[in-house]
Amino acid sequence: MPPAAASVARVSVTDAQIAELLEAVGAEDVVLAEPAMEAYRFDWARTPAGMPRAVVRARRAEQVQAAVRWAARHGIPVVPRGAGSGLAGGSAAIDGGLTISLDRMTEVRIDAATRTAIAEPGALNVDVKKAAAAHGLSYPPDPSSFEICSIGGNVATNAGGLCCVKYGVTSDYVLGLDVVLADGRLITLGGQRVKDVAGLSLTKLFVGSEGTLGIVTRVVLRLVPAPPPPATLVALFPTVRAAAETVVTIGGELRPSLVEFMDGRAINITEDFLGMGLDREAGAMLVIQCDAPGPARGAEIARVEALCEAAGATEVYATDDSEEGEAFLVARRSFFPATERLGALLIEDVGVPVPRLPELLDGVADIARRHDTDIPVVAHAGDGNTHPNLIYDPKDPAARERAEAAFADIMALAISLGGTITGEHGVGRTKRAALPDQLGSDVMSLNVAIKHALDPQGLLNPGAAF
Amino acid sequence: MPPAAASVARVSVTDAQIAELLEAVGAEDVVLAEPAMEAYRFDWARTPAGMPRAVVRARRAEQVQAAVRWAARHGIPVVPRGAGSGLAGGSAAIDGGLTISLDRMTEVRIDAATRTAIAEPGALNVDVKKAAAAHGLSYPPDPSSFEICSIGGNVATNAGGLCCVKYGVTSDYVLGLDVVLADGRLITLGGQRVKDVAGLSLTKLFVGSEGTLGIVTRVVLRLVPAPPPPATLVALFPTVRAAAETVVTIGGELRPSLVEFMDGRAINITEDFLGMGLDREAGAMLVIQCDAPGPARGAEIARVEALCEAAGATEVYATDDSEEGEAFLVARRSFFPATERLGALLIEDVGVPVPRLPELLDGVADIARRHDTDIPVVAHAGDGNTHPNLIYDPKDPAARERAEAAFADIMALAISLGGTITGEHGVGRTKRAALPDQLGSDVMSLNVAIKHALDPQGLLNPGAAF
Repeated sequence: MPPAAASVARVSVTDAQIAELLEAVGAEDVVLAEPAMEAYRFDWARTPAGMPRAVVRARRAEQVQAAVRWAARHGIPVVPRGAGSGLAGGSAAIDGGLTISLDRMTEVRIDAATRTAIAEPGALNVDVKKAAAAHGLSYPPDPSSFEICSIGGNVATNAGGLCCVKYGVTSDYVLGLDVVLADGRLITLGGQRVKDVAGLSLTKLFVGSEGTLGIVTRVVLRLVPAPPPPATLVALFPTVRAAAETVVTIGGELRPSLVEFMDGRAINITEDFLGMGLDREAGAMLVIQCDAPGPARGAEIARVEALCEAAGATEVYATDDSEEGEAFLVARRSFFPATERLGALLIEDVGVPVPRLPELLDGVADIARRHDTDIPVVAHAGDGNTHPNLIYDPKDPAARERAEAAFADIMALAISLGGTITGEHGVGRTKRAALPDQLGSDVMSLNVAIKHALDPQGLLNPGAAF
Repeated sequence: MPPAAASVARVSVTDAQIAELLEAVGAEDVVLAEPAMEAYRFDWARTPAGMPRAVVRARRAEQVQAAVRWAARHGIPVVPRGAGSGLAGGSAAIDGGLTISLDRMTEVRIDAATRTAIAEPGALNVDVKKAAAAHGLSYPPDPSSFEICSIGGNVATNAGGLCCVKYGVTSDYVLGLDVVLADGRLITLGGQRVKDVAGLSLTKLFVGSEGTLGIVTRVVLRLVPAPPPPATLVALFPTVRAAAETVVTIGGELRPSLVEFMDGRAINITEDFLGMGLDREAGAMLVIQCDAPGPARGAEIARVEALCEAAGATEVYATDDSEEGEAFLVARRSFFPATERLGALLIEDVGVPVPRLPELLDGVADIARRHDTDIPVVAHAGDGNTHPNLIYDPKDPAARERAEAAFADIMALAISLGGTITGEHGVGRTKRAALPDQLGSDVMSLNVAIKHALDPQGLLNPGAAF
């Protein structure tokens, strides 16, 4: 396992320093009591976390600046935090450090004329979607957790989701950012303009930087006209291999707006949870949506259907009804809460070039067998991004060790297939140990050089990413 | 005017050092004779350029590495160069420096399974497009110069084009890069995977860095299924204002694949050149394409037509015929060569949020009057990116001074409207003086910090961008 966040830095903050923080930020927005801070220690990865010395619940960028300046002055590590729904331990608190929560900065404003959303980082993804929809516009990026994850967290991890196969990832929609730098300066990057090449691409550099380069306090997002409602197809396959190969075939020919995958074990876990009548015998299931306008949609779905059948699907069901289609996605999105009940989890996020998907999925099944670990797999299969979830009994140290070995093996497998250890969750604290294996020492040194240039004291989210 | 590139650095290279370069790179790929090097001094901006001491015409990444190592060892500035079609002086040679030309690294390979193109930097944009088309795929970014500009240059400037209003810019299609760093190390960033958030977003950082952070030797580009053929609409307006306001209206409602603008002066200059029967009386012309699939396309074009007519268009003509539609784009694309014959040029690339387009265009007309300078304007209007081209008699110093004052005023105007001094050409050497006005000192210092971290000697394209 990577080292616990708690072990990264040990600092001691004096009472006088705390008084100074209260003065700088405003006492009413600082949490100091340990029971109250408990809610700001962990994210969904449940990695080991320290007990912060203080949590600032910022309402304004100026407070973030004041808090960061205070931390910089005293050499105190800072962990920025959005909704806490991260899956890689990226916002796990540091013992004795400062956590800055953006959960109260939730404003979203739509500028229909420029087709942009101006969002504060604590706004939920779903709130941006709803605000855009009220203007006939759409914000595509849709992590499975879109109802509870924050835009700031989405920017920090360059979050993906289900739509990315057609509509791209968070970075593709970020036109501008306000960022508080490690020394407390607030900068504005980019703005409400689609094309802008003046200076280095700093906006894009901050997207996906996991709070290690600065703290985002405002996001300008590009919106697009709302796409037509999708048609949805569900196909069951006897084997994982058959489903995975179908994904490759479809990807080479069509442009569906969603291609989700669940293996047989994931189907059963979800069915145990939801009881919605999923086929427990299936080896794998694909849920595919097409949202081409007008009759093109029907033609696309018909072609998907034909390809599934030719690949040996045992059952194929297509519907134009959006609500019915959404029900299948609820199954897919319920996988995580369904799995969480079964034990402790190690959540993978490995991705490969789409043609390597069958090899990756076969390899994961093999690793599950070798390490005697339960590893149901769901995937945003259309873009090659998979989530093997390793379930183990937290009270059984041997099971935990096997799961950890499997966790490392799966990342190594993805790298060997030309893939990545993380497609959308971020490196955080759970995958840090594997990052050098993927990037190599030269690219790692480049990451570190940029980190040093922007955060010479190394106070921004130490222990995350690198 | 910004300082000439030639003035940025004065270096003296000894014969022994040249012998070392010949040894390191291979004598047959080094150009030393001044007449032969003349072809590698200027780009299309025709900014003042120095005479390089040597030009390396690399065939392989290893030669780029060897040349950069040699330059780093001796403190010699390096200017990377693609096809030399840049419009901001970004590849203007430095007196006594080393120019590394990538014009012989032209290989393009399509991997249909992953829908990617692997291109060497000297490959022309059009060659990538053609190679993709042979597989039923498409590489959207389409600078007007797409037939003569290189992919490496496109990456260096984060080039845009006509399609960006719907399909985005170069950065949106770059999945991976090989880059030779300032110390000669070759790194590989990203790869053939759509989602990858492992480590900082370095791939995106190098896109648009104008050769100041490293030299790109290989590009992995995301391809998309070929879009359906577009329908094309041409609309003439009595005034620039009416056309610009129509663009804003269309942008708020529809998603055309192309929205190009020419003002009356640009129409006349192009008609002088082509004699294709353009209406010399029109105040402005829009060329609009829609490529939604199936009947959605017709509905979209019909709506565009109605909006143009409601806005007072004096003539509207729509065609489903791709070749006929392409003829109108030829007019648009011919504007630059047509203008070049008329005198010396200062080429603007200012962009604004689309709703500010009417103000920008009115303001440019006002600046033209105030400075008594001929400034025809074309624009990728749909994304707010405009090209006022300032024409002056190079033999008339007063005219040149007026043009330079107008050039600065137009950039200041764009900034005041929440816009950018450069939407797609890059800062290069022509807009360097205005960059701090747009970015402000904090963001400038961040640019410089990253530049220092990656190129501590400051040898990569000094004088470009910042």
